[in-house]
Amino acid sequence: MLRRHVVRGRGRLVKSYRKELWFEVPTRRAFINITSKVEACLKESNIKEGLVLVNAMHITASVFVNDDESGLHHDFEVWLEKLAPHGPVKQYRHNVGEDNADAHLKRQVMGREVVVAVTEGKFDFGPWEQIFYGEFDGRRRKRVLVKIIGE
Amino acid sequence: MLRRHVVRGRGRLVKSYRKELWFEVPTRRAFINITSKVEACLKESNIKEGLVLVNAMHITASVFVNDDESGLHHDFEVWLEKLAPHGPVKQYRHNVGEDNADAHLKRQVMGREVVVAVTEGKFDFGPWEQIFYGEFDGRRRKRVLVKIIGE
Amino acid sequence: MLRRHVVRGRGRLVKSYRKELWFEVPTRRAFINITSKVEACLKESNIKEGLVLVNAMHITASVFVNDDESGLHHDFEVWLEKLAPHGPVKQYRHNVGEDNADAHLKRQVMGREVVVAVTEGKFDFGPWEQIFYGEFDGRRRKRVLVKIIGE
Repeated sequence: MLRRHVVRGRGRLVKSYRKELWFEVPTRRAFINITSKVEACLKESNIKEGLVLVNAMHITASVFVNDDESGLHHDFEVWLEKLAPHGPVKQYRHNVGEDNADAHLKRQVMGREVVVAVTEGKFDFGPWEQIFYGEFDGRRRKRVLVKIIGE
Repeated sequence: MLRRHVVRGRGRLVKSYRKELWFEVPTRRAFINITSKVEACLKESNIKEGLVLVNAMHITASVFVNDDESGLHHDFEVWLEKLAPHGPVKQYRHNVGEDNADAHLKRQVMGREVVVAVTEGKFDFGPWEQIFYGEFDGRRRKRVLVKIIGE
Repeated sequence: MLRRHVVRGRGRLVKSYRKELWFEVPTRRAFINITSKVEACLKESNIKEGLVLVNAMHITASVFVNDDESGLHHDFEVWLEKLAPHGPVKQYRHNVGEDNADAHLKRQVMGREVVVAVTEGKFDFGPWEQIFYGEFDGRRRKRVLVKIIGE
């Protein structure tokens, strides 16, 4: 059981941790549950109280927290394609020698990053919170950054 | 008056604080100003310089910063219902035994979390910034996490 | 070359830094690359490992990370105007004596803030990441907050 609230009386020295997670999604778009990979980083960091920043290092991808349910991921895909369709490719001025303008837009809806609290050495998550990598322009190697600050 | 910029020369020990705020919204959707509740946490923490993370612990709710104006909240409601309509419920594959797929989508538009700077013991806010809990699938007890890191 | 992962063994004292960046955009809407301004703050802070929070202090503006490409910025403008049109102004209840309800909505899509990792004294960015101020209701002086926490 987590304590309902915690105030550290004396304070501690601050520590930091950094790791890159690499992905190569074979399709243009996909959602990948990266919670266990980020948990492994947290364990390796040995940080007990603090904040974890998890962000896409590419501007056509997202990191977000939502439900690990395949039906919902299908709904996200259909919904994002309606809000920011991939084609016709020529509707976007960005698509000069590229065809990924929609990926830049979709990433804004889903977000670049999440900041997750660390309490007593664990993610301070609600019952269904899971961390996802959202790829909107895959078929190449891309990275996610995990940065942890705390004590 | 806040100092225009502050560089702490010597550094201090880091402290952390955690609290859950509970809500039971009687309707499916609502926006609740939680600024004063988060301010009470900050005061209790006794942290003077740092960052406050405020996040929904449920994946069908949001925490965001915007204006405390009822007309705008009505506009948000109408706009979100246009971007990600609740019904017909069967349009979403997530809705097998559930009817809240739209709440998962709406929460992506409005965001999971805010990170707010703490300066001289107060939220470092512009003139109209207020913190809101956005409920998109209420009628049950749900939580918001407040985590504060700093010195 | 950044080290692939870093765990600080002993820990350090935490420091904080704060600065406001001011903008007066002559048009209603614009995207401004503020990366170099935030980099100057980071250099001034002398913080080597930590987190930078960059947030709009106004609720009709955004701070976000994306590509510094004018075609894409045009696409953002067209897309946001489709998702949350400025007019007709009367479609929004917020517009009583104001005409900026759409700016409050656009800011939710683009986001209030970014949190950027600091590693070895630099932004821990992927190849194309740049920080932008997104103005949706300009023609007056408005602020962005830079808050840095770390060691």
